This record gives sequence, C-alpha cells and structure tokens, in this order.
Amino acid sequence: MEALVIHAPGDLRIEDVPTPQMGPQQLLVRVRCGGICGSDLHYYQHGGFGTVRIQQPMILGHEVAGVIESVGGDVTGFSVGQRAAITPSRPCGLCRYCQQGLQNHCLDMQYYGSAMRMPHVQGAFRQQIVVNPAQVHLLADGVSDAEGALAEPLSVALHAVRRAGPLVGKNVLVTGSGPIGALLVIAARRAGATHITVTDVAEAPLRTALKVGADETLNVGQDAQALARYEADKGFFDVLFEASGNERALAGAFAVLRPRGVIVQVGLGGGPMNLPVNTIVAKEFDLRGAFRFHEEFATAVALLNKRLVDVKPLISATLPYRDASRAFALAADRSRAMKVVLDFD
Amino acid sequence: MEALVIHAPGDLRIEDVPTPQMGPQQLLVRVRCGGICGSDLHYYQHGGFGTVRIQQPMILGHEVAGVIESVGGDVTGFSVGQRAAITPSRPCGLCRYCQQGLQNHCLDMQYYGSAMRMPHVQGAFRQQIVVNPAQVHLLADGVSDAEGALAEPLSVALHAVRRAGPLVGKNVLVTGSGPIGALLVIAARRAGATHITVTDVAEAPLRTALKVGADETLNVGQDAQALARYEADKGFFDVLFEASGNERALAGAFAVLRPRGVIVQVGLGGGPMNLPVNTIVAKEFDLRGAFRFHEEFATAVALLNKRLVDVKPLISATLPYRDASRAFALAADRSRAMKVVLDFD
Amino acid sequence: MEALVIHAPGDLRIEDVPTPQMGPQQLLVRVRCGGICGSDLHYYQHGGFGTVRIQQPMILGHEVAGVIESVGGDVTGFSVGQRAAITPSRPCGLCRYCQQGLQNHCLDMQYYGSAMRMPHVQGAFRQQIVVNPAQVHLLADGVSDAEGALAEPLSVALHAVRRAGPLVGKNVLVTGSGPIGALLVIAARRAGATHITVTDVAEAPLRTALKVGADETLNVGQDAQALARYEADKGFFDVLFEASGNERALAGAFAVLRPRGVIVQVGLGGGPMNLPVNTIVAKEFDLRGAFRFHEEFATAVALLNKRLVDVKPLISATLPYRDASRAFALAADRSRAMKVVLDFD
Amino acid sequence: MEALVIHAPGDLRIEDVPTPQMGPQQLLVRVRCGGICGSDLHYYQHGGFGTVRIQQPMILGHEVAGVIESVGGDVTGFSVGQRAAITPSRPCGLCRYCQQGLQNHCLDMQYYGSAMRMPHVQGAFRQQIVVNPAQVHLLADGVSDAEGALAEPLSVALHAVRRAGPLVGKNVLVTGSGPIGALLVIAARRAGATHITVTDVAEAPLRTALKVGADETLNVGQDAQALARYEADKGFFDVLFEASGNERALAGAFAVLRPRGVIVQVGLGGGPMNLPVNTIVAKEFDLRGAFRFHEEFATAVALLNKRLVDVKPLISATLPYRDASRAFALAADRSRAMKVVLDFD
Repeated sequence: MEALVIHAPGDLRIEDVPTPQMGPQQLLVRVRCGGICGSDLHYYQHGGFGTVRIQQPMILGHEVAGVIESVGGDVTGFSVGQRAAITPSRPCGLCRYCQQGLQNHCLDMQYYGSAMRMPHVQGAFRQQIVVNPAQVHLLADGVSDAEGALAEPLSVALHAVRRAGPLVGKNVLVTGSGPIGALLVIAARRAGATHITVTDVAEAPLRTALKVGADETLNVGQDAQALARYEADKGFFDVLFEASGNERALAGAFAVLRPRGVIVQVGLGGGPMNLPVNTIVAKEFDLRGAFRFHEEFATAVALLNKRLVDVKPLISATLPYRDASRAFALAADRSRAMKVVLDFD
Repeated sequence: MEALVIHAPGDLRIEDVPTPQMGPQQLLVRVRCGGICGSDLHYYQHGGFGTVRIQQPMILGHEVAGVIESVGGDVTGFSVGQRAAITPSRPCGLCRYCQQGLQNHCLDMQYYGSAMRMPHVQGAFRQQIVVNPAQVHLLADGVSDAEGALAEPLSVALHAVRRAGPLVGKNVLVTGSGPIGALLVIAARRAGATHITVTDVAEAPLRTALKVGADETLNVGQDAQALARYEADKGFFDVLFEASGNERALAGAFAVLRPRGVIVQVGLGGGPMNLPVNTIVAKEFDLRGAFRFHEEFATAVALLNKRLVDVKPLISATLPYRDASRAFALAADRSRAMKVVLDFD
Repeated sequence: MEALVIHAPGDLRIEDVPTPQMGPQQLLVRVRCGGICGSDLHYYQHGGFGTVRIQQPMILGHEVAGVIESVGGDVTGFSVGQRAAITPSRPCGLCRYCQQGLQNHCLDMQYYGSAMRMPHVQGAFRQQIVVNPAQVHLLADGVSDAEGALAEPLSVALHAVRRAGPLVGKNVLVTGSGPIGALLVIAARRAGATHITVTDVAEAPLRTALKVGADETLNVGQDAQALARYEADKGFFDVLFEASGNERALAGAFAVLRPRGVIVQVGLGGGPMNLPVNTIVAKEFDLRGAFRFHEEFATAVALLNKRLVDVKPLISATLPYRDASRAFALAADRSRAMKVVLDFD
Repeated sequence: MEALVIHAPGDLRIEDVPTPQMGPQQLLVRVRCGGICGSDLHYYQHGGFGTVRIQQPMILGHEVAGVIESVGGDVTGFSVGQRAAITPSRPCGLCRYCQQGLQNHCLDMQYYGSAMRMPHVQGAFRQQIVVNPAQVHLLADGVSDAEGALAEPLSVALHAVRRAGPLVGKNVLVTGSGPIGALLVIAARRAGATHITVTDVAEAPLRTALKVGADETLNVGQDAQALARYEADKGFFDVLFEASGNERALAGAFAVLRPRGVIVQVGLGGGPMNLPVNTIVAKEFDLRGAFRFHEEFATAVALLNKRLVDVKPLISATLPYRDASRAFALAADRSRAMKVVLDFD
C-alpha cells in the first residue's frame, strides 16, 4: 500500500507502507479522494507552522473519503462497498473535556496528519486506512468522493458558524476567501444570514466566493477603504468570520462591526497580532476562537447528502496522488486553485 | 374608501370609511393584497378567541402589502410608487419592554386588527392606510404583492425559529401544518435544520409541507403511532415547533423529543392543556412560548427579496376583497386552502 | 453490616447485608449520615411515585456522607480517615448523552436507591458502601457529616439555578418551601438574586425559608391572592422556581411573572397538570425542567467547605438509623420537620 | 454653587458655576459624596486618555450620591430629603441601540464628566445637580453616602460579571486589583464563584482584594511565574476578568485559562496590545469587552441596600472637595489608596 509521507520541507515521498491490520471493532476503508488542506501545505512548504514542526516522517492528510472494504465482526450498521466520508478527529472520550462535550479540546486527541504531538499522528493520504465506526459517515448516491472529502473543511466552517450563534437575518462579513472563507459563506448562508460580504486581496478567490453565494466581494488589496461605507451608526455587520489569519483583516473590521458584534476567529496567523483592545471593550465585541469541530462532521455529510449545500464550486482540480508535487504546487497558487483533490484510486 | 369591518360572528361588511389623514412623519399606502390569518377567521367565525371578543365594529386584517401613494414632508428614504410590505406591529418605543428590546411585549402595543384592547385597534383590510416609516419595508422587483402580504406570518415563523436557538444540523418536528406550520418548515430549513418532519391530521396541508421542503410528513389522524419510530434512546428530535394549539400534538411529541429538547409553542389553543409536566422535568425540556415578532419583519422581507425563501406554494387563491365572504369560507376549508389572499386593487 | 431495606409501603426493615467487596479502583466508605429525601418518603409511604414502583427489596437512600475506610490500590488522591460527601449519581460515561456533557440523562444511569430500573439500584442507607473515586468529595474541617449529607439536595438546587441562567439582580419567586425550596433560596441568593419571595401553604416551612434568607414569605393557603400585588406591568418576577409539584402553584404564578420570564420546574407532581398554555405563548415564558444534577455536586461541596452557603437551618433532627420508622414519620410531618438526618455511626 | 472644573492637565479649579434650573420632570439633588475614578485621574494627570482629550473646561465626576432637595411637579415617587445614588448614564432612549436594550451603546449618550464628545458632558463633582427620575436610586438607611457613590463602579463590575455569564461554581481569575478589580471580586463572589484568584504587581491593592473576599492573591511583579501552578490539563480558570489594561496580564493568563474559557476585558490600555491570537483560536476562548453598564446600576443599589455586598473596605479616605488636589494625589498613589471619596457637604 502506498502513502504520501512528508520528511522535511519540500520532501514529500510516495512510500510503500504496511497494509493496516483491522480489529473486530473497526473498519477498513479504501481511500479514494483526499483534499489538500492549508496545514498540509504548511508542512510541505515550511515543515510546519508556529511551534508545530515535523520531527519524524509523517503521512499527510485529513480530508478523505473512500469506500468500505472490510467490516469488523463486532461492527454493525455498515457493509462492504458503501462510500463514506471519514472524519480525522479521534478524541479519547474519557478526559474531562470529552465528558463535557468538548471533544475538540480532548486531552489525548489523535487527529490525522498532525505533528502537534510526538510521535506524530499519521495521516490519511494513503490507499487504505483502518477507522473506528464513529469516524465513518455514509455518502448518498450522487455525492461524489471529492465532495465527501470536503466534509472535513465544511465541518470547520459549520463549527465556526455554531460558535457565532444564530445567524438568521444577520449581516455577515467574511475576511479571507480561501477554502475556509468560501465554506463559511456556504455555511453562513445555510444558517440564514441575509447579507454576506467577503473581502480578500486576490481576485480569483473572491470570484469563488460570489459563485457560492456571497452578496458582495471587496478586494481590500486594491482599495483599503472598501469597507468604509459600512461605518455609519457604529457599524453595519453583526458577525465577522475572520478566515485570513491576518492582523489587518481582523483589526480593520472593527470599525464596521456593530456594538456587541461577534467575531469568530478561524484563521491562524504567523504570530501575535497587534489589536486595538480598547475598541473590543468600548464596542463590547465577542471575539471567539473556533478550532476544528466534532459533531459538525455528521451535519456536514447530512447537508451534502440532502443537497442543502453545494461545495462543488470550490473544487479546482482532481489529480492522481502520484502527481502529489504538482498537486501541492497548484494548491499553493491562489490565482489558480481553491481546493485541490488527490485521487487515490 | 372601503374597508372590511367585522360587526359580529358572521357579520363581515364592506363599508365606506373616511379617507385617512396623513401627518408629515407618515406615509399613505394603497393596500393591494391582504392575507387572511387564523385570527381573522376566528373573529369572523366566532367573534374572537379565548377572552378576546369583538365589542365594537373593527376593520380586520394585519397581513398586507401595497404601494406608497404619498410621503409625508418629514419622511426620507421613500418615494411614491414604491411597493412595500407593511408590518402591523406598532410598539410604543418607550415602555420598559420596548427599552429592553422586547417590543412584542410592549405595554401599549397597537397591533392592526386586534380586539385585545378597547377601543379595538382597527385593521388593514382597507384600500388605503396611513403608516409610520418604520412599518414600511420595500419589496424587490419580482416579489409579488401577495408574497409581500406573507411577510407577516413569515415573521411569526422566523420569530419562533429565533426562540428555538441555532438550528444548523438539528432534527426538527413541526406539529400542525397550517400556514404557520408550513412557514416554520421554510424558516427552519433556511436556518439550517437537516431533518424536518411535519405532522397533521389532514392530507392537504401535509402536501403543502412537502412542497416547501419537509423531509417527511406523517398523518397522525390516520396513524396515532406514526411518530413511535423516533422514540429510541430517549428521542430523536432536537426541536419541536408546536403550531397546532392541540394538547395531544404537544404531549404526544414528548416521547420523541430528546432530553434537553426545545419546544417552541406557537399555536394557541382553545383552553388550558393537560400536560405530563413530570416528563418536562425528567427530560429537562425547554418549553418556550413564541408570540408575534418585531425585528423579524425586516428579515422576512430581506429573505423574500433575495429569494432565499419561497412562500408561493402557500398561496392557495387570490380573490377580490368584494368577495370577502367567499374568501373567508375558502380560508376556513383546510382541504382546499392554505393561505387565501384578498386583492384590494 | 446493616442497611435500611424497603420491601413494601410501610415495610422498612433493618437488615444484615453482606459486607461489600472493593476493587482496586474503588474506595470503601463508612457511612455516617444520611438525609431522608422526598423520594425515600414516597417509597416508604406509597411504594413509589407515578409509574416508578418497588418491585423487589431495595436499600433506600442517596444523600450520604461518611469517612473513607479503605482506598483501592489504583486510587490516588485519597487517604483513610478523610471525610467526604458521596454523590449517588453514577453515569456510564459512554452513551451519547454522557459524551455531550448531559450525564444526568445517561442512558445507563445507576442512581442510588432508585426503583426506576430493574433490578433496582440499591441505595446508600447502609453502614458501608463501595464507591468510585469520582463519587467522593472531601469535606473541610468544620463541615459536619450532616451538612455533607445535604450536598446532594443542594446539588439539585444548584442545578435548577444553573438551568435558570444568570440570577444577579433578578427577582425570584420560589413556590413550595420544602427542603428543595429552601435550598433554592440559598442557591438563588448565592447566585446573586436581589429579591426572593417564597410561597407555601404551611407556616413552618416558610419560617425556614426566612431563616435561610428569603426576603418575604407568603402563605397562599391562607390568602390565595397574596401574590396579586405583583401583577402590575405584566408581572414583577424574572424567574420562578416551582418546587411544589402543584398545578395551582405553577399556573398561579403566571400572572406575576414578566414576559420572557423563566420558569424552572423542579417539583414532580402526581400526574398531568392543566396549564394555560396560551399564557406561556403570549408572555413567551421559558418553562424548563430541572432533573437531578452532575457537576453541581462538586460545586455544592465547595460552597459548603468555603462557608459560602449555610444549610444548617434545614436540619430539623438527627436520629439513629435504628429509629428509622420514627425518623421517617418525622420527615413526613411538615409542621415539625424540614430535613431529617439518619445517624449511621 | 461650586464645582470642580478641569482646564488642562494638573489645572483643576474650584469654580463658582450657576445654580442649575430644574424642569417639572426633573429633580434637584444636593451632591454629598463623589468617588474619584480612574478616568477623572487621567483627565487630571494627562488631560485625557487615548484619543479622548479635554478641549474645553469640564466639570469632572460621575460617581456621586446625595440628597433630594427639590422634586419637579410632574415627578412622582420621590420626596425631598431622600438620599440617593445618581447614575451618570443618560442614554437617549430612541436610537437603534437603546431600542435593543443596549443603552450603553447609545448613539447619543450623555455620560457625566466625559470629554468623548463636543461640547463635553459636564460632570457631577458639584454641589447641586439636576437629574432625571430614572437617574435617582434611593439608598436605604444605614448605607452611607460614600457607599452610594460606589454604586457606579460597582455597576461596572456587575456589568462585567453579566457579560461573563453564570459564575456559580466557577474558578475566576481577576488580573489587576484596582477599585474595579476589587469590585469584580465582590461581584463575582456575589454571583457564586467558588474560587477567586487576584493578581497585581503591588501589595497594597492585593491586601484589599483579600479583605473583600478573594481566595488568593498573587504578586506577579515579584514572581512572574506565580500562575504557572494552574497550567495543568490546559488550564484551571473558567473565567478571567482583565482589569489592568495590561497586555502582559491578558496574554499571561492564556496558559491558565481552560479551553472555552471566558475572558471579560474591562481594563482600558494605553494602546494596541500584542496578543497570541492563535491561542484564542486553539483554546476557543471567548474574549468579551465590557463597557460601562445600564440596568446594573439598580442592581448595585439593591445589593448595597440589602447588605448583600460590602464595598466599605475599598474606601481609603474621604476628603473635603476643597482639598481636591490632595485627594487626587492620594487617589493616584496605589500604595496608599484604593478609592478616595470627596465630601461635598
């Protein structure tokens, strides 16, 4: 069986790894599609991000879908040949945070393709993977494997939306129109937002934002004052989803966010940000972090299965996993690609 | 100018009333469409409901849309010829509840066509009406006057949805598939519900529920045990919108509502209900009343204007206001009509 | 070892039961004090309540404190001789509700002294008991064993307060001044309520309510209109804790509860209640059930240990467990007793 | 009549100002006590803070209590001779934020002694003041005028506590032990917090924190690692009240705040703060600004009147207003003073 293993920045290898052993309470899934995420790119380009660094070879990948190849003897409710999206999130279930329903803060999380802990948690860019039943979410007919692979980033967006509270009738600003930004447009619209403005410094991603339903896009690279029209009466927007990880995007939105406005910070930045905290006080913002997801994975698959969301406009290209280097280069080019999917078949 | 005036049960007259005077901070609207609401029907059939009774002649109606005919000298932002939905809700703005943002509980509410107070508040089933700027919500091109008239009941549904809290990914049960029940399906879906089951005792309204997006409809008149499949593990549904005002519908859902489930009671019943309160305790339900609306009217019109909801399947017929008796008879027949609209042109 | 075993209504026996075996991950506790709860009384007087009936001999009791007699080899953080309150709540930790942090709705709950399931869960009115570390909450010096036994009903009150949301500055009504009602006064005051009125139909319990800090008590048995002074402007109280399980207490408070008022129903009644649901709708009440507790047990012990609450005024008498019949008779007499504690030493 | 007028940094004058005219819907209050606030000090020492600068002579002061000297003809419920705390907050009541119950974000706020707008809003450090009935909150016998003057900063603390959500059973950290920090200890304890740690870089204010009920104080000036003991399992504290306006205090608490911890930022800093936003994301903090107050003023007075809080340990000294310079100098010396009160009698 082959897998995509990162050894060092730029050193991504296709390697033969042992065929996994499956226990009686597990399933064996043949991976068919895997989406390249920003964190995969960071490992590939820089060997990690912040204090998280590759210290040993690690299989990349955590956005995958595939087909069930074998079902353990103690597992019920699944059968061979079913297609499914696989959640990369495997909380322990026993720690204090799991017992509080905060599985994304598990003290012993095993999240695919993450170098946060040693030994690293091996990822899912591989031909076969052994999973637990709780990780398997069946895809409906007509939902492609590539769409299924997007269940994971869609879950991130749904979790951020959940952190924002009710959105029906709200005016929403999304800063940063990468894959998460675009999925936030989809998720916020699905949750009832009536107005969605998206900002970015590049044109191509803003075009995708329009395709997935934004009311308006603003290129703040071309016009730094593009948001100024929304400053009257202490600000127009009820909710900001910050998906760029950029200090200027975050602080720059303070003037157009109404008092008691909610900021959901999803984007991770390169370091500390210099923020006008006095404005957070005076306008009584709620700045809430959003990190990964848990039950939202099931919601993501349900929305895909019922055609209540359409993520297809995000899929820029599907390439064979053997062309991984080309795929990663494409994924890194915002002018050409939003989400690049690897085909493992 | 003519108006529809209720004098006593069954005694609905088309009467000539004085042309209204408009102040400099008001607008004059020519009413074009008016939806017949359940409360209009109750006044017509029974002279009221509960302790609310007609004690003097009253113009009916509170679901209307029309065209601006004149704009007061102190009013800005509107011009003659614009079409608009008119909210019937006129809170005082000064009482303790208005100052808390709870305008629907205003101590001095003037709500069109309501006999709750003496003298009654005259309604909007009339050819012309004088309104305040805050009542006027412009309709986009392509949104019909009849759709605009449905902004009011849609607001009721949106308010109920707001009372429920976030619905993204939730399993929703709607009991009672009248106009409010059907609008709850639309509103809950817009808010992100992934599964919506609707129950009723009649087939025709359930067919409309399917048309507006319910996943499933169950005729509990034909099969009282139709919901039983959802009882496992203490219940399947996260949220119940009770829109029938029927004791059996409410209590009958307790077994299929999960612990900590939310019940939003929208339907008004004929009298007290006999409820298994011990189940509310043991399963820790949240039973929340939902009454009218306030800011949701603007949201309703925004959703209609942006085509984010489609209320057209609810409109069973549009009749001239001079055929009011026929229109009210039709509105009272659930096998033939969901929402009947009066044409005042 | 002796235990108090209920066989049938009125048939409470002191029986010799086997000395329990302790595993390496458990502790052995010598029980010193046990409070008699309303449910113990119901088993004793009527053989149960509602559909819950004694079908086999069952040791009563779930409000106990004692001293650690032995510590299993795998247990850390405890030592022999420490005194502790013991929570009777033993959720499975694995079911969907436990994983959502809703342990009081566990699908496989083992709650001491409860006939809800077969075989019944044996209770804690016994000289020795084997417990899990998570059940053991150490008592500070100066906190008596009897006070420790009250940690359990205090937890019920704290859970109800948590269900109510923030109470700082709120006007609170408590209907029913039994032990739970009195503990609700203590808990609501601790949570910041500025005004607390308590109603009951008996004088003695109302006197206790005053002792624990109520601003005012009203005997609604003597004056059914005693609350009428609070009806102005749609109602004075922000929150109602209903602790009587009485339909008239619940419905009778609707007129004095403000719009959007919160009702926390704690009391269990004898059967269905006839409620004016239309008022719940029109005033948009939130009627929330409160059932048992989970993390509130640790809070209860912390508050007792830090002297941030004082439950001593509730303790009417402490009797030897061998006088159980006399103790149960006393506990059933509201004119003489609030909380009766059994001494197992 | 005399008043304390600031003209420029260090230039605080006692001036004769016209005796105010009172309308029929107003009251005339003889000011008896006024607390010196941090913002008064900033005007005195630096001429303002941030972008807020004195541009014209302004009477200082917004924490006052006094006695009613005259009652307008249209005012009911008050009589001459009653003592009262006076809220400095006068929202317009009509703007969109007032109508949403967010009066502290009023678009036309008139807050005593504030240079935020031109002309400045004159303050309350004067012998007589004309007020609206809504500003007058009667003090109970036994509550001193000086305590009454502290109702205003207590309201700030209560508002911050409200922004934090329920505190019963919570572990609370307060960074910065000035008057607001100390009042946060009082307010958090009143709201049910079970553990309160306070940090500061000075000993004297920490001693006051202990007096008002903190469980523990830590001098982080002497030991920068004093909080490190609370880092296990991702952090011990549930809630942080940041009352220092200091970047290091805020960011330094991130390691001891549990995932989903709530940060209420009350302190205003001198400029932007450099914050590890990635930690806010990864631990999903809620960072909420808290600014002034509205309905909390009534709560503050109710708590003082019922002796449910004790603010007396904060009052370091009471000086005649004619010694204003000495009083301001004392107020600026953290080693000697917490809250300094001016006596206007």
